[in-house]
Order: sequence, then structure tokens, then C-alpha cells
Amino acid sequence: MLVVYSDRHQLHDPRHDIQGGVPADMVERPERAERILNALQASDTFEVRAEIDHGLEPVVAVHAPGLIAFVREASDSAATGMELFPDTFLHPGVSAGMSLTAVEPTDLTGRLGFWCFDTGTPVRQGTYAAARAAVDVSLTAADLVFDGEKAVYGLCRPPGHHAARSVFGGFCYFNNAAIAAHYLAQRTGGKIAILDIDYHHGNGTQQVFYAREDVLYVSLHADPRRAYPYFSGHSDETGTGPGLGTTVNLPLPAGVSDVEYLNTLDLGLDALTRYAPSVTVVSLGMDTYVHDPLGDFALTTPVYAECARRIAAIASKLVVLQEGGYHLPDLGENVRQFLQGLSGD
Amino acid sequence: MLVVYSDRHQLHDPRHDIQGGVPADMVERPERAERILNALQASDTFEVRAEIDHGLEPVVAVHAPGLIAFVREASDSAATGMELFPDTFLHPGVSAGMSLTAVEPTDLTGRLGFWCFDTGTPVRQGTYAAARAAVDVSLTAADLVFDGEKAVYGLCRPPGHHAARSVFGGFCYFNNAAIAAHYLAQRTGGKIAILDIDYHHGNGTQQVFYAREDVLYVSLHADPRRAYPYFSGHSDETGTGPGLGTTVNLPLPAGVSDVEYLNTLDLGLDALTRYAPSVTVVSLGMDTYVHDPLGDFALTTPVYAECARRIAAIASKLVVLQEGGYHLPDLGENVRQFLQGLSGD
Repeated sequence: MLVVYSDRHQLHDPRHDIQGGVPADMVERPERAERILNALQASDTFEVRAEIDHGLEPVVAVHAPGLIAFVREASDSAATGMELFPDTFLHPGVSAGMSLTAVEPTDLTGRLGFWCFDTGTPVRQGTYAAARAAVDVSLTAADLVFDGEKAVYGLCRPPGHHAARSVFGGFCYFNNAAIAAHYLAQRTGGKIAILDIDYHHGNGTQQVFYAREDVLYVSLHADPRRAYPYFSGHSDETGTGPGLGTTVNLPLPAGVSDVEYLNTLDLGLDALTRYAPSVTVVSLGMDTYVHDPLGDFALTTPVYAECARRIAAIASKLVVLQEGGYHLPDLGENVRQFLQGLSGD
Repeated sequence: MLVVYSDRHQLHDPRHDIQGGVPADMVERPERAERILNALQASDTFEVRAEIDHGLEPVVAVHAPGLIAFVREASDSAATGMELFPDTFLHPGVSAGMSLTAVEPTDLTGRLGFWCFDTGTPVRQGTYAAARAAVDVSLTAADLVFDGEKAVYGLCRPPGHHAARSVFGGFCYFNNAAIAAHYLAQRTGGKIAILDIDYHHGNGTQQVFYAREDVLYVSLHADPRRAYPYFSGHSDETGTGPGLGTTVNLPLPAGVSDVEYLNTLDLGLDALTRYAPSVTVVSLGMDTYVHDPLGDFALTTPVYAECARRIAAIASKLVVLQEGGYHLPDLGENVRQFLQGLSGD
């Protein structure tokens, strides 16, 4: 299987995030991608390719120009080692009933809270370059599938599925999966599906495609009432306008077992089968793993191969993009199991 | 002059806020109110009264029941010394175009980001009790003016003007000035004005009254493009519906001098004069002072007396409520100058 990887992810090396007001060691760090790469390189099943620069156009097709400019400018302005966090956020409660168009502040802290929704997503000097490289990884993987590969893995880092059209957060800056899905929709002229099996709801991906009928979004995730990102991912969120019915949320309780997870995956795959996409983008998160520090599911390593077999059985073309997963000791092996399950190995 | 004070503000004694991701010493602390009280008690011009419990009804009239319940429950749940901060915020970018009713999470961190817009406003064990007492201070001051006093000072702490109907922040939990103004509007059946001369825009107060014609909101403040709270307070925000024209924002540049400030105050007072309220509530912030650690204006102590003289010249009934002001050495004297200026002393 082809694997697309960029070493430019190393340019984004945050040390902290802020959890409940307390600085904590950042779990979304370069070692994640290196562990996965090493696990795949240990097997001769995988061939690693570098990313190809696709320019800004596919990013602008999904994200607000102001968001892209802000991440670039904030990265450029950060001193070496400095991590920029917002502290004051554009919150709908402040403008409720006022019908105003929000004005981007000139102050850096104000701009951070205008474009970002959490304190988990610092901007550093190399953030923009790394986030752009992750987009190119996703687009390069998409090209390879468009050109005939059955399944290609893009080792994206930073991840992407929490980035919405006009706001970033959740360790994510640009939405790799959404950008690849939109790009494939344009290239193929056909329907695209995104299957999101990260522990967390892909609130950004959902927002990007909520009103579109040409991209199906199916997500299995921790119930947002108890888990990040909290404010979307409920089962009654099903799309709007022409996109009505093309969002499928399958929230899950704490402690979900392999069997329960696979049963729910089958429901998601039924929706995929009915939609009959030309290509399926998989947002692959390994934070569903029993030992993951951010999750509360009970999935074990073998379930990833079984998930992959079931996905491969119904999807003919697959672009698999890395999202979360933070238990470093088993992260590479879990990804390898998933990818080998896709190949039927 | 009568001064209403509650020692219950001491129950809210936060140690930190989070500025740009970095924990910092909290400047909104009990010593602020004690400094002011001491400065006033040193003069025999002032007579201190205790607050009277007004119950929950006036608070519910302005704030969402869920917000009130959350502050109470979070305060009750906090262990001694623990400070609760949000890290993930309800941000309009995440739900843009989705037309969803936001669902309050069950998780405490999720609830914090649902009801609060910044990392400057920790909830502690005594927060709810102190915030309720500050409301009672404002309502007791309002009663005294309703009963015939020309001007009464309510030494509110925590402050209030950043708390909107459904969200708190900016060191504020319940909006003392908005609650007093609404209460006076009900009691008098007449028009009420709020003159906000804190350094920061009173985004919460504006939101509460934006669509109402019976309460005028006039604010002088740092331009939100460069200063907290960043996302409202522009001069083109003038109200909506029946409230069109009853919001007057006068944003100011950095380094504003006494003369420039007084000239702008005159513009605000012109609006007040045209509106002809039965009572004016003053949101009094001393963070406009040249040495204030949060501000960038250049106002000096004598300007506060002059501001007060000009306000008293056009307003017959005044409820003056403390908002910000963080330069402790001169805080009490600045407030005393203002209040003595009101009395014509």
C-alpha cells in the first residue's frame, strides 16, 4: 500500500496545551507520526511517497481566506519557541439577537479568539508550514486514488477534522479530510463519502459539508454531551437544505467494546452503501484505543483490522487520512493493523 | 452619599486567570473592594449600608436560568481552592450554517465553554454567593435612588458589565448594572440609561438591551479592534428593532488624555440628555487610569471628579456601580474623587 508522508510535520512541535486552565504536556506531537511511520516501514507491505505541493487553491476552496491568512501570519509572527493561545472567544452568547457581522480585531489575542475555539491548539513558528504540508499529504493521497490505487494512506499531522470553514481548534488548523473530499468531488464529479472513526466528533468536517448533498459525512464518536468537542455530533444533526440526510452521527457511550463498536460501524457502513460514493475518505483516529489518554472507549488492537476489512468490503476506493491517536506505544501497530486489514492481509 | 457594600465579595477570591495560555496573578481580587471601601470610610461624606437580599427574580429577569444554575452548580461542585476554567468554547464558526439549537453538555468542562467566553473568569467555591451579593448591592442602591436619593454608589464586586444574557466572562458572572437597570425600568415604568465608563466595552450590557427602547446604553471604551472584549463595541452598533438608536458606542484610541476623554464624554452625555431617562446607572471602571495594568488610556485622578460633575449636571438620579479598575494604590482615591465630584464637593 502507498503511504504519503511529509517530514514537514516536524515543524509543528508544540509543547503545551491548556486543559481547564492548566498547562499540560501536548500529546499531539511529532513522535506520533514518527511512531506510525516506523511501524509501517518495518513491513515491506508499505511504500512511502513524499507529498506534492498542491498550492493554496484547494485550501481556499474549504476554508475562509481570513482563517488561512491568520494561521500564516500568526506563525510568521511567533518568536522561536513561543506558543500563541487565545483567551477570549467569539461566543454566540455575546452577540445573540444583535444580527451583527463579526469584525476581526487587529490585536493578536483578539484575532486568536476570532479564528480559534479552544485552548488546545497553539500556533507556533512552524505551524502554518506543517499544516499546509498535511493538506498536501491528503491531496497527494487523493491523487493516487484518483489515478487508480484502491487505497492510499496519508499520514497527516497535524490532524484536521476539528477545523471548520472559519475556525480552527482541537489540534487541527486546516481540515485535511474535508479538503481532500472537496478536491475529489471536483475531480471526479461524483459523490464522495467521509467516514470519521476518530474518538472525537469531526465538528469541522460536519460544518463544512452540512448543507451539501455531494459529500456524505458519517461519524462514530464519543457522545458530545460528555466528550470534546461538546457542541456538535448529536444523532439528530442530519444535514440541512440539499444536504439533509447526508450527515450521520453515531455517538457512543463510554467503555464501548470491540463488538459494540463493530455493530455501530455496520450502521455507518449501511449509510455509506446506500449513498454509493465514488471515493470514501476515512478520518482515522486511534484515540478509540483502550489505552488512549484522551479517550474512554475499550477497543483493542485486533478490532482495527476488522474495522478495515468491513470498510474495504463495501468501499472500492479509499483515501485514509490520519487524525488523532495519542497512546504512543501501540499507535504504530494499531495503524498498521488497520491498513493491513484494508488490503485483506 | 450612601454607599452600599457587601463583605460577601470576599467569598470570591480567585488566584489566577489565563492570559494567552499563561496563568497570571488575578487582578480582580478582594483587595480592590477593600481599598475602595477604606478610601470612602476615611471621609465622613460617605455612609455605608449593607446590601438587602432581593432574591433570584431580578437576576432571572436578565439572565438565562441555565446560566444562573450553572454558576451555582459549578461553585457548589468546586473543591476548596479549585478554580474552574473552560478550554473549549461554543464558537459560531463551528455551527455556521447549521441552524442548530446548541445543547448544553453534561461534562463540566463542556458546560464551562457553553456558558463562558474567556479564560479570565474562574468559578470557585464562593463565586456564586459573591456574584449574587454584588447583584443585591446594585439592587439595594437602585432602591435607595428610587426612594429619593439623588446618587448612590454600589460597591459591586465581582463586576458585571461583561455578562450577557446567556454567557459570562471578563471577571463578571451576573450583570449588576443590567439587572439594576431592568429592575428600575420595571419599578419606575420610565426610561433608564446606562452610562458605561469602564475602560472595556460592556459587551454583556449591550447584548441585554440591544433590542430594547426603554434602556439606553452609552459606552466610552477602548476600541475593541485592539482591546478586550474584542468582538463588540464598534461605533456602528446602534441597536436593533425597537432598540435602534438606543446603543451608543464611543470607542477610543490608546493614550487618550483627560481632555480628549472629557470631549468624548460630552458626546455621550448629549445622547443621555436627548434620551431623558428617569434614572441613569453608571458602570464605573477605573481601568481608564493612566497606571492601570489592563488599560492604555492616560487619564489622571482629577479627571474623575470632572467627569462626575458633568454627569451630575445632566442626570438627576444616579446609581453608580463599580466595574473594573486594577491599579490598587490609587483605586480608592480615584473612586472617591468621582463620587465627590457627583456631590459637587
